[in-house]
Amino acid sequence: MAHTVSPLARPFPAMPPIGGVTLRVARAGYKDWGRCDLTYVELAEGTAVAGVFTRNVCCSSEVELGRANVAQGRARALVVNAGNSNAFTGYRGREAVEQIMGQVATHLGCGSKQVFVSSTGVIGVPLPKDKARAGIEAALQAEPCTWEDAANTIGTTDTFAKGAMAKAMVGGKTVTLTAIIKGSGMIAPDMATMLGYIFTDCAVAPAYLQRLLSEANQRTFSCITVDSDTSTSDTVLAFATGAAGNAELTGDDSPGADAFAAALEDVCRQLAHLVVRDGEGAQKFIAVTVSGAVSDESARRVGLAIANSPLVKTAIAGEDANWGRVVMAVGKAGEPADRDRLSIGFGGTWAARDGQPLTDYDEAPVTAHLKGQDICIEIDLGLGDGRATVWTCDLTHGYISINADYRS
Amino acid sequence: MAHTVSPLARPFPAMPPIGGVTLRVARAGYKDWGRCDLTYVELAEGTAVAGVFTRNVCCSSEVELGRANVAQGRARALVVNAGNSNAFTGYRGREAVEQIMGQVATHLGCGSKQVFVSSTGVIGVPLPKDKARAGIEAALQAEPCTWEDAANTIGTTDTFAKGAMAKAMVGGKTVTLTAIIKGSGMIAPDMATMLGYIFTDCAVAPAYLQRLLSEANQRTFSCITVDSDTSTSDTVLAFATGAAGNAELTGDDSPGADAFAAALEDVCRQLAHLVVRDGEGAQKFIAVTVSGAVSDESARRVGLAIANSPLVKTAIAGEDANWGRVVMAVGKAGEPADRDRLSIGFGGTWAARDGQPLTDYDEAPVTAHLKGQDICIEIDLGLGDGRATVWTCDLTHGYISINADYRS
Repeated sequence: MAHTVSPLARPFPAMPPIGGVTLRVARAGYKDWGRCDLTYVELAEGTAVAGVFTRNVCCSSEVELGRANVAQGRARALVVNAGNSNAFTGYRGREAVEQIMGQVATHLGCGSKQVFVSSTGVIGVPLPKDKARAGIEAALQAEPCTWEDAANTIGTTDTFAKGAMAKAMVGGKTVTLTAIIKGSGMIAPDMATMLGYIFTDCAVAPAYLQRLLSEANQRTFSCITVDSDTSTSDTVLAFATGAAGNAELTGDDSPGADAFAAALEDVCRQLAHLVVRDGEGAQKFIAVTVSGAVSDESARRVGLAIANSPLVKTAIAGEDANWGRVVMAVGKAGEPADRDRLSIGFGGTWAARDGQPLTDYDEAPVTAHLKGQDICIEIDLGLGDGRATVWTCDLTHGYISINADYRS
Repeated sequence: MAHTVSPLARPFPAMPPIGGVTLRVARAGYKDWGRCDLTYVELAEGTAVAGVFTRNVCCSSEVELGRANVAQGRARALVVNAGNSNAFTGYRGREAVEQIMGQVATHLGCGSKQVFVSSTGVIGVPLPKDKARAGIEAALQAEPCTWEDAANTIGTTDTFAKGAMAKAMVGGKTVTLTAIIKGSGMIAPDMATMLGYIFTDCAVAPAYLQRLLSEANQRTFSCITVDSDTSTSDTVLAFATGAAGNAELTGDDSPGADAFAAALEDVCRQLAHLVVRDGEGAQKFIAVTVSGAVSDESARRVGLAIANSPLVKTAIAGEDANWGRVVMAVGKAGEPADRDRLSIGFGGTWAARDGQPLTDYDEAPVTAHLKGQDICIEIDLGLGDGRATVWTCDLTHGYISINADYRS
């Protein structure tokens, strides 16, 4: 939490405990800092797990092992190390992860595949095994802590703690979902975002939880970008303890499955937005809505081309309704588009329709909209029914300042 | 030429006249500025032409017409408008281009398809026909000017005039190639770069000139990026007047074809480098060399993923040997890569080999290298023989300053 708090920050919400989930934090000292940097989450026996992970082929051992182990569907613990991503560290990095898994599994008397590990921070430095071991020892003996403590502990360059919550009625029981996330730069999740964790007391079968998480991910984490750079460690895990006592959800036909799916997507969207709101140097939160595409996926790609364009992002930073740069970004996206059917608007005002600037275009409402913190860019491709919204932030001097001198 | 001259600028080279080419400039007043902004180049009858153009699907009418008309192989004139790209202006923009083509064709007594037009500047404002007509009238009556005058006149946000020259022996005759280019931002040419023009007195058949230009383009303009944003107006045209008197080159077997092809690629590379050297806000010129890829094209794509990464570019701006960000960029490129075979170096010093940081890595020579203006990043993927070099610049506060407040 090194930098000035983002002007787009949101207060941490009131989040209740989840039955079957216990949070603890400790100081492993992965960096030379006074803060806690190791988070330990203990989960009740039988907790279902699902996960989505980065597609970066240079992913960390944490991601490799997590992806493999999520397949067996059950989790007893989560360990998150902050300050060292342990990525690109070869066999030494992998040994450190396996040590953590073994240490926790021995403590809990479970299989090591039920222990999930994430690490975030600098790339290329093997996670020090001695610090990890001592940090976990300390965490096991620590008092349980709050969601906000845990959200702070998993952060690195984040400027505020990020949490989200939702409730749903499932088979006559109220189930709760709570979630925390960290992420600010190197954000262009191809499948997931930096590190996000969702906890629920709802009983959900692992395979169904995985399907719901993957679907929600496509419309939430896969629709955000800060800087187009996909991390080597992106991970989102969902844990379902079943403590609410509902009949286990196993498919779309299970009573309450719709309500749970909607709540899960709601939480994922909240988390995704919070990451954008803490985008490095962000001054404005930008929603790019693309309609009229040949498919939803095509709309998402066009949206991301706009959201990743440095020229569009700097124009928004400058509060400049430079829609020509949006035209450029649509055209370079590599997706079907017809210049002469393209329409572009800001905050509900069309600037161009059907491939031409409006002759009676009144820039005043657009200029007023761009002076705000929440910016909407609307694109209609005029080709089909495909539609998507993606979210990003502007590109400012703050991004340069943060990244031209960040390193351990 | 609005901003401080790039610290990476190169002096304009001494460039001789080319037989069959006459340059003139005038002030059309496309923007409220005192400078010349219309360039008129008259070409001898029978001049061969070849061109490569942007792949941006929202391209300008200039690009559409140029792409169509280059197919007939002959050119008599080139008109370049600066200060207004005329892109995304619908039928009004197209009418302006057709008016210019007709006006010049009438003057020269040639077909209008032999008149090539380019425009660069703000998107979405139809090129004013009255200013274009008067500007061309003025240019037709102006005294011939120098290459440097023309290079200055085609520029917009460029901070220095860019020219290149080469000579070759072709069939016992010395032929000369001269070239000018403009470009600074919105540079990620998918086929060509902003606006570049190559002139030679060599006699070359149009189809062969097109093939050579397309091949050179793949290794030069298609290997540079400033900000990953592909312009709607990218155009490179090559004109061969034949005034040198050599036997026309028609294929690789023609005497001197090798020498001419090498000189053409040399000029293209010089131009491409000059655009990067004038990249918006650039403080460092960065060459990214990727070897060991499964193919040359795969190497180029990995190189561009690195060269387009904001986190890599800001690290170089901060003179930080943060090779972890290079790992990330390799991994997100979507090309075959194996984390455990990957090696990364800076300026000839390996920082990581075979997927791990070197235990005896000495950062001192790397740090010294990064303090210079010309930075080399070397990546060995360890998979095959594919190889490419791409060029970019760093990402600095200057880029933000230029782009958060640029518009007509």
